Amino acid sequence: MSGPLITLTTDYGVSSPYVAELKAVLYSACPEARLVDVTHAIPPGSLRHAELVLRRTAFAFPLGTVHVVVVDPGVGGARRGLAVAARGLFFVGPDNGTLAHAHGSDGACAVVLDRPELFRTPVAPTFHGRDVFAPVAAELASGLPLADVGSSISTGALVGTTLPAPELGERRARGQILGADTFGNLTSNIPARHVEGFTVKVAGRTTARVRTYAEGPANTLLALAGSDGYLEIAVRDGSAARALGTEVGLEIVCEQP
Amino acid sequence: MSGPLITLTTDYGVSSPYVAELKAVLYSACPEARLVDVTHAIPPGSLRHAELVLRRTAFAFPLGTVHVVVVDPGVGGARRGLAVAARGLFFVGPDNGTLAHAHGSDGACAVVLDRPELFRTPVAPTFHGRDVFAPVAAELASGLPLADVGSSISTGALVGTTLPAPELGERRARGQILGADTFGNLTSNIPARHVEGFTVKVAGRTTARVRTYAEGPANTLLALAGSDGYLEIAVRDGSAARALGTEVGLEIVCEQP
Amino acid sequence: MSGPLITLTTDYGVSSPYVAELKAVLYSACPEARLVDVTHAIPPGSLRHAELVLRRTAFAFPLGTVHVVVVDPGVGGARRGLAVAARGLFFVGPDNGTLAHAHGSDGACAVVLDRPELFRTPVAPTFHGRDVFAPVAAELASGLPLADVGSSISTGALVGTTLPAPELGERRARGQILGADTFGNLTSNIPARHVEGFTVKVAGRTTARVRTYAEGPANTLLALAGSDGYLEIAVRDGSAARALGTEVGLEIVCEQP
Repeated sequence: MSGPLITLTTDYGVSSPYVAELKAVLYSACPEARLVDVTHAIPPGSLRHAELVLRRTAFAFPLGTVHVVVVDPGVGGARRGLAVAARGLFFVGPDNGTLAHAHGSDGACAVVLDRPELFRTPVAPTFHGRDVFAPVAAELASGLPLADVGSSISTGALVGTTLPAPELGERRARGQILGADTFGNLTSNIPARHVEGFTVKVAGRTTARVRTYAEGPANTLLALAGSDGYLEIAVRDGSAARALGTEVGLEIVCEQP
Repeated sequence: MSGPLITLTTDYGVSSPYVAELKAVLYSACPEARLVDVTHAIPPGSLRHAELVLRRTAFAFPLGTVHVVVVDPGVGGARRGLAVAARGLFFVGPDNGTLAHAHGSDGACAVVLDRPELFRTPVAPTFHGRDVFAPVAAELASGLPLADVGSSISTGALVGTTLPAPELGERRARGQILGADTFGNLTSNIPARHVEGFTVKVAGRTTARVRTYAEGPANTLLALAGSDGYLEIAVRDGSAARALGTEVGLEIVCEQP
Repeated sequence: MSGPLITLTTDYGVSSPYVAELKAVLYSACPEARLVDVTHAIPPGSLRHAELVLRRTAFAFPLGTVHVVVVDPGVGGARRGLAVAARGLFFVGPDNGTLAHAHGSDGACAVVLDRPELFRTPVAPTFHGRDVFAPVAAELASGLPLADVGSSISTGALVGTTLPAPELGERRARGQILGADTFGNLTSNIPARHVEGFTVKVAGRTTARVRTYAEGPANTLLALAGSDGYLEIAVRDGSAARALGTEVGLEIVCEQP
């Protein structure tokens, strides 16, 4: 049978040896594991980018998958390490909001990683990915119950999302651009279904509502339902990120016509 | 036994969550699959770069491998989705020329992907990689016959290569630079064997014919048989891409001395 | 049971087809292999960067792992190809110093790759990664003994490290910055344990000794024991690489107070 899946999401960079150090720990502790690179090119320290990646990808993986998510600017400081079980999957990483999509799910359980006997020793104070999170992930993948890798903590006590919340009224919604993809398409925090039929302005500029890029007039800002269910801003055969001069934080206003 | 191989070639970018979304679909639908990243750094929308990658790599993989190749600027428009069987391997992706090396092979068979019951639903009009191509690839990897994933279509009816054709005369050949690698070595569309012993000029400049980089004089454009069988332009311990100021489209002229 | 691990470290670049060509050879010759990308973003031709990656990662992998390390600016020239067995692991690559950490280990054995019947034919003079090193790695992963892939050579006859050696006195140590990670943290060649309690100057500038990034005052150069056991220079919530204007070769002087 195929071994347990462990995914890796980090900001270590594509040229870094750190990723391979995690893989070495994981294969050593869980020889049957199958490792999946999600991305290692999260912008350094960007909690928000990590959250967006997790929001899109995590729950599409098979039940039992262990997600290791390490964007950890506070490493070695007071922030906690977590393992979370949610909807049949596991998540391991620092308690800094990157795991909020997991521990905010209905029925999620969380533990604080406080069992040094599970860690690689000595724990380097600058590299908990290798010395804390990877060893714990390997244990979970090998079948150790969540309750055995740390002490239970209420999910309400954990650091919440760092993504801004939209204002969703019945005739009007306001939100923000959260990030851009490699094509310059911009994703947002406004659920597309909530604003069906609404007009959409981004940074004060009018957009054309379309269903696909191909439908759009050229050189025009397009608003469409993104493949993650959120409102997306795009330019056909172009880049909305370039057209708008910036990516993150721009205001989107949607109104019923 | 080892599971079926599925390779992934996309322009989604190294920091994107999209790649992981494909992987999640593939592992969910074909738990035994072994996924192979070819590259996710195809320049956005570059059909030509995707074709070059496929031309070099596809047929070296073991029989039965399924290649998912998604560079898809026309997603959501009228372009067809394809699955192709060629020389014992499978290929899945849009009908935009990127699969031409596969469906142009002797004995290749192709089908149009027109069985929505195989797709992830609802199909996002902007993300057929996840919702159409990955699910179909998982079916092929799981053993479903090509004929069962779509309707047969003549390979002659498919979009052909977007790579320019060389002129190959007996005493003279003309072709083009098609791309550069990370070292600045330039690949072309001229079969090296065809121009053995010929002089080679690129963008009007003379080159020295060599067999290996190490043989070349310094600071000189070198012409050699590339490891893909095509004429390659290089500079020893340097970058031909930098020396020539640009990469793609430069003319190469080869003549019998 | 899980198949043999083969890791890949190259300077081929993330958009290159060359990596996939290696993978195709490896999966074809050793169908049970599990391939692990270490990195393919070594700066082109940087022997030093490759050595640093190997130094951090190689011996953490499970016994029996085969490491393929190809940064090979001398490909096609007189440099030898090697396979090395050290501490229960295997290493395959050119004899240019990148494997020095392996063949410099106690009890290491090495062979020169001189059995063309093991190679992919014809061997492209510009691509020994695909045609020499990958096929030999697949043989080792499949269980062929080291002695059967080449002719024995004394490790003393091999090219040594290209990393500069530190001067380690009892009251004073001098060394160099060897490289930067994606966060701008700088690694060095000075064993952290040797200079515990010493003052540290880098490029003539004073540093604050800390144990973790979080302890450091802001906008100050910090010196700490890196997670690889070597002295590291960092800036809290910033980049030491940026603060110092350059990365590699800067002098570090440590003195007992």
